[in-house]
Amino acid sequence: MVPESDMHRHFTGLLKSGEGTDVTFEVSGETINAHRCVLAARSAVFRAELFGHMKEGTTTSAIHIDDMEAKVFRLLLSFIYSDLMPDIIDEEGDNANDEEVILQHLLVAADRYDIQRLRLMCEEKLCGYINATTVATLLVLAEHHHCRGLKEACLDFLDIPANLQVFAGGGLNYLGSSCPSVLIDLISKLESLKHDKTITDDG
Amino acid sequence: MVPESDMHRHFTGLLKSGEGTDVTFEVSGETINAHRCVLAARSAVFRAELFGHMKEGTTTSAIHIDDMEAKVFRLLLSFIYSDLMPDIIDEEGDNANDEEVILQHLLVAADRYDIQRLRLMCEEKLCGYINATTVATLLVLAEHHHCRGLKEACLDFLDIPANLQVFAGGGLNYLGSSCPSVLIDLISKLESLKHDKTITDDG
Repeated sequence: MVPESDMHRHFTGLLKSGEGTDVTFEVSGETINAHRCVLAARSAVFRAELFGHMKEGTTTSAIHIDDMEAKVFRLLLSFIYSDLMPDIIDEEGDNANDEEVILQHLLVAADRYDIQRLRLMCEEKLCGYINATTVATLLVLAEHHHCRGLKEACLDFLDIPANLQVFAGGGLNYLGSSCPSVLIDLISKLESLKHDKTITDDG
Repeated sequence: MVPESDMHRHFTGLLKSGEGTDVTFEVSGETINAHRCVLAARSAVFRAELFGHMKEGTTTSAIHIDDMEAKVFRLLLSFIYSDLMPDIIDEEGDNANDEEVILQHLLVAADRYDIQRLRLMCEEKLCGYINATTVATLLVLAEHHHCRGLKEACLDFLDIPANLQVFAGGGLNYLGSSCPSVLIDLISKLESLKHDKTITDDG
């Protein structure tokens, strides 16, 4: 008799209608409007930005964001208003490769604005993209943005000798230069495996 | 790994914080602040009221509502921000009797602002309050606010001869004067019951 919650549909409608927007972002040259209170409700970082130095009435100057693609910011907004993972691949002809890259950017954006549920959703989806080509990048991403699940999944992938061999050919150098700390985790993982194996062999 | 949606918690937090409110209601003498875009997202009636004649910037004068208790308006807001049925009985010492009366008022408010999910929730709860004392009032309420479920439940209650007898003593007069149309439904219900009974008796 009582239907499911329709909040996500209502706020998605609000975003699409553009009615009553009171904050403007200039994201990599593209103008994107939103509602301050929705952003503040959903992200402590936006709350501090938008209400921290709040003046009477609405802020008129646009907020510039130049280190993020407009598409990624639009996906972030879509999640903020709907609480659902947005469709990454749109009609513009993106392919699965693009999805993996965009998911990485979206994870970074989610972490920057402290939107934990979206960060975890990206992390979960990216676990499905781990392979010999991507593992080094994903490991660095996981380390920089405190993604325990993704990091564990990458280390598990490298626990398989054949994967580790391919990785040692190229990814290892990248890891060594961009995020040496994670090498220690990798070594300790492999060491503990070896140790476990020794015990098993002995027993 | 990914937690449940936390939208209802976020918007409830926004309402409680009072940050960034941009519309003021004066409800039966009490001042209550809210966010225009949240109200507009959740109710087509609020959308028309708040954005229909929108001026630049925010409206400064308060919106007066004198035919609703402040408590009922606060419960309505609580639902709008959370999409959850609020606690009707609070610490002020309300009892179950109050709950039934407040639910009726909340149903009227939900219908007025076209918040269907809340209307259905109130309707469902009120079905649990049908008895010989309340049935006439609830039947009139259901008829005036197009609550099919509640109306059916009331008519079902009156299908039991003992209930109908108590009702005929007082409620029937009230129904005749305040909502005669529903009497026709009641009569046709009882008629069809009699008819069914005749067929059964014959067969």
